[in-house]
Amino acid sequence: MNAQDRLTMPIGEVMFTQRAIRRLRSDPISVEDIETMLDAAAKAPNGGNAQPGRFLAVNDPAKITSLGKLYHEAWWAKRRDLQGWHKPEDVPADDKTYQSAMRLADEIRDAPLIVLPCANKGTAHHSVLPAVQNLLLAARALGIGSTLTTLHPDVDGRVHALLNIPSDVEVICCIPMGYPRGQFGPTSRLPTSRTTFFNSWGNPPPWD
Amino acid sequence: MNAQDRLTMPIGEVMFTQRAIRRLRSDPISVEDIETMLDAAAKAPNGGNAQPGRFLAVNDPAKITSLGKLYHEAWWAKRRDLQGWHKPEDVPADDKTYQSAMRLADEIRDAPLIVLPCANKGTAHHSVLPAVQNLLLAARALGIGSTLTTLHPDVDGRVHALLNIPSDVEVICCIPMGYPRGQFGPTSRLPTSRTTFFNSWGNPPPWD
Repeated sequence: MNAQDRLTMPIGEVMFTQRAIRRLRSDPISVEDIETMLDAAAKAPNGGNAQPGRFLAVNDPAKITSLGKLYHEAWWAKRRDLQGWHKPEDVPADDKTYQSAMRLADEIRDAPLIVLPCANKGTAHHSVLPAVQNLLLAARALGIGSTLTTLHPDVDGRVHALLNIPSDVEVICCIPMGYPRGQFGPTSRLPTSRTTFFNSWGNPPPWD
Repeated sequence: MNAQDRLTMPIGEVMFTQRAIRRLRSDPISVEDIETMLDAAAKAPNGGNAQPGRFLAVNDPAKITSLGKLYHEAWWAKRRDLQGWHKPEDVPADDKTYQSAMRLADEIRDAPLIVLPCANKGTAHHSVLPAVQNLLLAARALGIGSTLTTLHPDVDGRVHALLNIPSDVEVICCIPMGYPRGQFGPTSRLPTSRTTFFNSWGNPPPWD
C-alpha cells in the first residue's frame, strides 16, 4: 500500500495528539513504516523544489548504542551550556520535561530507530524543517512516538565519523523513534490569542 | 467547532496534495479559518515548550497593498542576488516555478491574507518552522492555498515599520494565503531511495 493510503488518521487528530514521546519500546520499526514516514517527509515544501534534505535512518543496534552514548554526552553538554547543570541532582525534580529528557538521554541507546535529517552546510533550514514536521506527523499517524532534539558541537565530529557523514554536511536534528511506552495525548500551549497579532504587532486577533 | 474537529481530511491526502499555490482568489479567509490554522500551528513541537513563535496575520487590504509592494521588491532582490536576473525577460520562459513565482510577486497585493511567522532574533528555527508546516497543512485541509516564501534584507526595515514589528524580532517567512485559482495536486519529488541512507552515509535504504 502506498504511503498516502496508509496515512488515514484525520489531520486534526494527528496534530492535536502529537506530543514528545521520550519513553520508547525497543520493538523494531518496520522498513515499510520507515519508508512511509520518509515518503511523507519528501512531500513537504522546500525552496525551488531543490530538495536539499537528506535523511539518515539508523536502526543498526550497534550504531544506535554508539550514537546513544554521543547523544547522552551532547544532552549534558547542552545542560552545562544553557542551565549550568552538571549532574542529575542539578535537574529540578519537579520539572517533568527536563526529567523526561534526562531519562531519554539515558535510554536512547535502546531506541529501535534514530533519524538524522541532514543537508549541506549553509542550506536554509526552511527547506528541511517542514519535511521534519511531516516525518513526525506521519510517525504519529502510524502510532510511532518521536521527539525533535538537537545534538551539540562537542559531539559533532564523532557523529560524522560514526556514520560516515561528509564534513560539508550538517546534521540538523536528531529524532529518536519507537512505539511509545506512554500515550499520545494533548499538549499544553499558550492560547493563540496571545501568540497571534492582527495587522500590526501587539494588536490582538478577533478571538479570545 | 474546535480546530481539531474541523480538520477532518486524512493526513496522507493532505500531505500528498500539498503544493505551492501561487494563484490566489481575492475572496476573504474567514476569521474562523485563520483561528483554526493558528491553533494547528500552536500544537507543533518546539524546544522546551517555550513557544517562541509569533504569528502576524495581515488581512487589512491597505496593509497588504503596501506589504505586497515590498514583497515584489524583495522577490526581485533575491533574483538579483541568486540568479543575476533583473527583469521579466531574464526569467527563463520554460521555468514554470520561477514564472509562477514572478507572477505571485505581481499579484500578492491582491491576496486576502498574508501570515508572517516571527520570533525574537536568535531563536532556533527548529522551534518555529514545524509550526509553519502545521499552518500550511491545516490551510490545505481547509481548501486554502499557500506558499512558503521569504523576504530579503533590502525590505526588512520597511516591513518592520509597516507592521510595527520590534527591531529585536525576526520575520522568519512570508506566507500569502487564499483560495486557489489553480488546483491542489501531486508534486514531483526525488524518490526517497535517493534521499535516504541507512546506517551509514551513502548506504541506500532497503527499497527502490
